[in-house]
Amino acid sequence: MRQEGTIAAIATPPGHGGVGIIRISGPDSHTILGRLFLPASPRFAGFRPWTLHRGRVCDATGAPLDDVLAVAMPGPRTFTGEDVAEIHCHGGPAVLAAVLEAACACGAQLADRGEFTRRAFLNGRMDLTQAEAVAEMIAAPAQGGLRLAQARLQGLLGARVAELRARLLDLRAQVCVAVDFPEDEVDCLAPEAFVAECDAVAAGVRGLLSAHQRGRCWQEGALVVLAGHVNAGKSSLMNALLGRRRAIVTDMPGTTRDFIEEPVQLAGLPVRLVDTAGLRDTGDIVEQEGVRISRDLVAQADLVLLVVDAAAGLGHAERELLRHVRDQHVSGAQPARSAPSSQSAQSVVPAGRVLVVLNKTDLAGGYGGAAAFQCPQEVEGCPCVGVSALGGQGVDELAAAARTMVLAGLGGGDAGGEPESGDLAPNLRQAQVLRRALDELDALMADVHAGVPYDLCSVRLDGACAVLSEITGETTPSEVLEHIFSSFCIGK
Amino acid sequence: MRQEGTIAAIATPPGHGGVGIIRISGPDSHTILGRLFLPASPRFAGFRPWTLHRGRVCDATGAPLDDVLAVAMPGPRTFTGEDVAEIHCHGGPAVLAAVLEAACACGAQLADRGEFTRRAFLNGRMDLTQAEAVAEMIAAPAQGGLRLAQARLQGLLGARVAELRARLLDLRAQVCVAVDFPEDEVDCLAPEAFVAECDAVAAGVRGLLSAHQRGRCWQEGALVVLAGHVNAGKSSLMNALLGRRRAIVTDMPGTTRDFIEEPVQLAGLPVRLVDTAGLRDTGDIVEQEGVRISRDLVAQADLVLLVVDAAAGLGHAERELLRHVRDQHVSGAQPARSAPSSQSAQSVVPAGRVLVVLNKTDLAGGYGGAAAFQCPQEVEGCPCVGVSALGGQGVDELAAAARTMVLAGLGGGDAGGEPESGDLAPNLRQAQVLRRALDELDALMADVHAGVPYDLCSVRLDGACAVLSEITGETTPSEVLEHIFSSFCIGK
Repeated sequence: MRQEGTIAAIATPPGHGGVGIIRISGPDSHTILGRLFLPASPRFAGFRPWTLHRGRVCDATGAPLDDVLAVAMPGPRTFTGEDVAEIHCHGGPAVLAAVLEAACACGAQLADRGEFTRRAFLNGRMDLTQAEAVAEMIAAPAQGGLRLAQARLQGLLGARVAELRARLLDLRAQVCVAVDFPEDEVDCLAPEAFVAECDAVAAGVRGLLSAHQRGRCWQEGALVVLAGHVNAGKSSLMNALLGRRRAIVTDMPGTTRDFIEEPVQLAGLPVRLVDTAGLRDTGDIVEQEGVRISRDLVAQADLVLLVVDAAAGLGHAERELLRHVRDQHVSGAQPARSAPSSQSAQSVVPAGRVLVVLNKTDLAGGYGGAAAFQCPQEVEGCPCVGVSALGGQGVDELAAAARTMVLAGLGGGDAGGEPESGDLAPNLRQAQVLRRALDELDALMADVHAGVPYDLCSVRLDGACAVLSEITGETTPSEVLEHIFSSFCIGK
Repeated sequence: MRQEGTIAAIATPPGHGGVGIIRISGPDSHTILGRLFLPASPRFAGFRPWTLHRGRVCDATGAPLDDVLAVAMPGPRTFTGEDVAEIHCHGGPAVLAAVLEAACACGAQLADRGEFTRRAFLNGRMDLTQAEAVAEMIAAPAQGGLRLAQARLQGLLGARVAELRARLLDLRAQVCVAVDFPEDEVDCLAPEAFVAECDAVAAGVRGLLSAHQRGRCWQEGALVVLAGHVNAGKSSLMNALLGRRRAIVTDMPGTTRDFIEEPVQLAGLPVRLVDTAGLRDTGDIVEQEGVRISRDLVAQADLVLLVVDAAAGLGHAERELLRHVRDQHVSGAQPARSAPSSQSAQSVVPAGRVLVVLNKTDLAGGYGGAAAFQCPQEVEGCPCVGVSALGGQGVDELAAAARTMVLAGLGGGDAGGEPESGDLAPNLRQAQVLRRALDELDALMADVHAGVPYDLCSVRLDGACAVLSEITGETTPSEVLEHIFSSFCIGK
């Protein structure tokens, strides 16, 4: 892992905008900036720290590339902890590429994904939860996820984990005393007290874990999949939920071939809404692939919207589909969730994860659509709403019902509303580490109960402490760090 | 048109990146920044001009939104000429939306498209060609277009137009003298001298106009359309030219239904490459629409790549298609170009605008593809290249041939290579204004030749001057300004 040298990258999102930034970090960043930059003011006397200077960037031949603002920020109190320079250009891809190329011609190397933040972490400017929060702030699909990421960016999660770890370290010290002075009854740690303290820490870990599931959908968006028979109007419903035309809509079955994923908010809840190929067997190669993909998606979904033509009613094919979707949910791999495996296959999960959407209610109501369509409360044990995707009737109610069902499915209920400032929610990696810490603590308590000697117990205690440190990054394996930072965007 | 008040917008491109900027401009921008910003340093004693300060932005409830850098830039020597503030946040859509919302809650209004640049123009920070160059810098698809935009951004085009206009104003002064003192032979302007000077200015205008066509393709990208019979391998060729998988490729005819447009560089030339539905009559609704769209595109294209299956050879259907493409070109509306209308329909345009691409040459060469495929130099009078879109053979040669044909079609030839720093190329609006100025000058010269009295001629001379001022914006009608700035992105 390279940690030296001077790196450069486009720091702003790709695409077209008013302003784009080239960021340079490392020992030569200010020298490189000096070579690229031609000041506009005749009174320019070198870069004042943290001050924007107007001027022009030229390429190696002296040809002007862009009129810019430039700033030199001396380390160590910068984002990376190193000397940093920024060039603020016009926000076009060709401009930014040309200026970045000029910076590289002056000695900078192209930054890897997440390399700026990795340097910030390695230089002690932030702990690992804060480094991860940088990426999560950027990826947050809605206000709720933002608050969770901001709390981690402030270091609140790191502080909470450090607090739990400190209690284990304190317990470890008491165990040492008990081992070293076994006769000293006064200072001895009773097994009951040992277990009670372990249990208190475990409760803290469980508290963080329960916040994870709920946080996940606010951070990444819940996966909501549109399923249903071809021509039931899935594409129209997708467009209605998106509020604009995205999928090709025709009255010809099988029009949607690839699957389409769009970020959308359903009653404020961030959702990755996926429209799939119609669930039917087909000889069409493209459609066959689409159908395979849609079965996978249904298996992973937080919620399946089963779209049914209300006029046609729920026929044999739809019932088959409903059963298929239920089976998918039971057999589908859901590693992050614990399905109550003691119940029978038929009564598990589905009712809470499938919302039947009776579409085209405007056509089903009666002659000419004059009589109102009476929507049943539930169909085959699943909740049901009626909509007209084309007319827009019922779409808001559908969004609200979908939000409630997703949040209920994640165990949090919708009572609390959106996350608030200071709410702690570990991300997936952090939750996995917490689960391992919990396993260590459970095993430790079992050992103490079973009368295992304290000096053996202390090994597990050390283990639990070490696992917790992986969250803030003190003991995180380098391949995990590698994985974390490689998921960042370039320029962060 | 609102020119007062304080405006705010996201200034960086939409999407995810390391950094995103909220820009605020107007009399209250520094006050608004002060309300939003919580400095990190206890020693913070107000914003030093043009200096980045570290801190946090909070919403109205005091909840932290993001850790930021913030800067206050006092007018009038700012981009807009007004007081400007910038907040540098993490580059995520939700973060930026939240901070923008907070700025609006403190009194800023959402900026319209191009409103920052419009204010810069209205406050005299740049002329109209420079304001347009801001948008063109951002949109430039490649290095060549960048150089043209940069030359305009520096004001070189404005200066050249001002120089031509100054010569007309000088001529106007001489005409006044000749009208006021008709007997004074010494100072009198001879008709020959009048026409000679007009003609010199007209030559300057024509010089700028000839640079426009060539500049257009470097700035916007040339339109290159893939046409051909269904299943000739257009999608595979598109993927080969793009270097990645974009279109769905199967061996089933009619797979590409919508048309797909991708920016790509062909041998360095920026191109908008369009893959169309196969040109066949069909009962399929979606495909019918696609076929209609592709016929329109063929009519507008700078170059049509007619893809033919080399193994199948050029059959009746392909010859029909070739004739169809030729007819399209003759009948297609090409307002910006002057087709030599004196020639017969059959010999016009097509040979220079259609490149026949014999695809699947690896299959056509002989048994097992062992023998090399012999590609003819031309097919039906059109130049021809052989490729294997799947294997990649011949694709680079195709790109080079396409570049040469596009540049030849624009009249410039490929000899000069890419535009260089300082090259002047008016954009479409500027070229239209220049054409009107040229018409005035031509009419003026005809009047002088015809012996029209000088005092009447001076009216046309005034007209030509006024037209030229529209380029730099002194006399540009407000609806034209409106149109120009409304094509900008938000935040510029």
